[in-house]
Amino acid sequence: MTQKLALLDLVYDDLQRVEVKMRSIGAGAYAPLAEAFLNLLNSGGKRLRPALALAAYGLLADRASEKAIAAAAAVEMLHNATLVHDDLIDGALTRRGITTLNAQWNKGATVLAGDYLFARAAGFAAETENVRVVQLFAETLRTICEGELRQLFSSRQWRQSKESYYPRIFAKTASLFASSARSGAILGHATAAQEQALYDYGYHLGMAFQIVDDILDYTADEDTLGKPVGGDLRQGIVTLPFFYFLQSQPDPAPIVSRLDTALSLPGRSSGANDGLGEIIALVRASGAIEAAYTEAQEFCEQAQANLEALPANPYRAALTELAEYTVARGA
Amino acid sequence: MTQKLALLDLVYDDLQRVEVKMRSIGAGAYAPLAEAFLNLLNSGGKRLRPALALAAYGLLADRASEKAIAAAAAVEMLHNATLVHDDLIDGALTRRGITTLNAQWNKGATVLAGDYLFARAAGFAAETENVRVVQLFAETLRTICEGELRQLFSSRQWRQSKESYYPRIFAKTASLFASSARSGAILGHATAAQEQALYDYGYHLGMAFQIVDDILDYTADEDTLGKPVGGDLRQGIVTLPFFYFLQSQPDPAPIVSRLDTALSLPGRSSGANDGLGEIIALVRASGAIEAAYTEAQEFCEQAQANLEALPANPYRAALTELAEYTVARGA
Repeated sequence: MTQKLALLDLVYDDLQRVEVKMRSIGAGAYAPLAEAFLNLLNSGGKRLRPALALAAYGLLADRASEKAIAAAAAVEMLHNATLVHDDLIDGALTRRGITTLNAQWNKGATVLAGDYLFARAAGFAAETENVRVVQLFAETLRTICEGELRQLFSSRQWRQSKESYYPRIFAKTASLFASSARSGAILGHATAAQEQALYDYGYHLGMAFQIVDDILDYTADEDTLGKPVGGDLRQGIVTLPFFYFLQSQPDPAPIVSRLDTALSLPGRSSGANDGLGEIIALVRASGAIEAAYTEAQEFCEQAQANLEALPANPYRAALTELAEYTVARGA
Repeated sequence: MTQKLALLDLVYDDLQRVEVKMRSIGAGAYAPLAEAFLNLLNSGGKRLRPALALAAYGLLADRASEKAIAAAAAVEMLHNATLVHDDLIDGALTRRGITTLNAQWNKGATVLAGDYLFARAAGFAAETENVRVVQLFAETLRTICEGELRQLFSSRQWRQSKESYYPRIFAKTASLFASSARSGAILGHATAAQEQALYDYGYHLGMAFQIVDDILDYTADEDTLGKPVGGDLRQGIVTLPFFYFLQSQPDPAPIVSRLDTALSLPGRSSGANDGLGEIIALVRASGAIEAAYTEAQEFCEQAQANLEALPANPYRAALTELAEYTVARGA
């Protein structure tokens, strides 16, 4: 994150507490597992989800309690657990420019390492001693898994409807953003209306965030992404820019045929010269990026509107700025 | 289970409620996932873990509350989630004589299906609305994953110490048995001493159960096991019978060398003629089975002793019988 966000300043001390809490699990754990986990934490990540939980809490209450720290650690740990399994499923060898666990360990060990992180995430959720936070945690994990499964089973269905995209990115990203904000709200003793507003903010922010991520997968360079460009297309995942692109084609059949051919070539996962580069260039030139970006902006505006019912304080201002930043990444 | 256990009679109605609860998750779920999950439930399983939770509850309280049913569903669902990932890790194609999910779905889908079941298990645990039950659930999942990882990393270390075996089977089996009993006890408002006694019972029962399972892996036939005989040895997993066998050898080196050779042959996972059959026969003839069986009996006696502090009622009698049955399986 090159721009310095007010949010990360506001929750800086609490995020350090979250970091200490997450790292503490290395202490009692099986040594190879602890090492792998610390590598994962060290590889970066913006810690947006715990920051959201802490901001929602801070907006309503005083300095974060141990329970709020536990909730923030739970959402970040859950996120990391899903990353470990995602990388295994995708066969990804790098993330954030760093070698994945998947590239270092065998399949079985990687599955178990992810499971272990789920367990620790659930443990942090339980430390909140709040039944609703735990229920939310379980529900979100369920949503994420089910969404990933749908994505897997709809892979290479190039002509799937645009409407199928939104539930998929809700499951993948917005659900955890929304739950992170709601967890902080619950522990900050929000009213029902405040809790809903923060959930909705997290939802809209998450949707905007994922659309921008899906745009960057077409427009960014490999160094910025920390992974090969066009990864979604290579995995047969249909995202918003591709929908708009295919819609703009008078005859989509030749495109679909080229994609099917490209994805059946050996060695394509390496991002080698598989002909997909040309299709990515076509998507970029088609106006699809701009159309997708407009949608991200709309979600961002809705997120900002959700904040209006909440107390006007530095946390609210920081969350407004975060929404702006989220779409600015894709501009 | 050919013998009709009093325990399963006592908790029969409640186990039906657990079954209905578990199957209810199929309703809202993604169709291929629901189908796979129902197949898994239909493939049988003794439902010992939920029976333990219900028995611990029934020993102390009246007809099981919805929360006790939820706790029982949580432990069985957690067990099923670990089976899905275990089969993936082991490359197992059948379990209980039925084709595994792993044999039907690709790696990614199988990982996610297991994750999904973890999520639903966590959801059931949260339905107990009891923070301690949720904490216990998270802790047990953690123990199981860490144990499996240790097992994976110690694979083919034929000369590992006998002492490493006990923590491994605690993690693999006894931890969830013990937690199942403790969950029922907590929800049944056990005193601290009663809760500990039921935990200890579950622990000792689980240790005995796993030792007997490890014996059966050497002594049973494939039809009874529902999977190939000698699976542990084929996966390089050192269990109690093997420890005693290796200890009985004046010179273990030739055995170790034969195992290393056999496990490096292609196609060995199919249980084909890989030379392991001879080693299995040697283990059976060595007195190792009897030595392991004696240990299982000792754990069983400790389990029965743990019950003495608890109210003498039909549940207690049924748990005593269950311990007897557990070791009788291996005789």
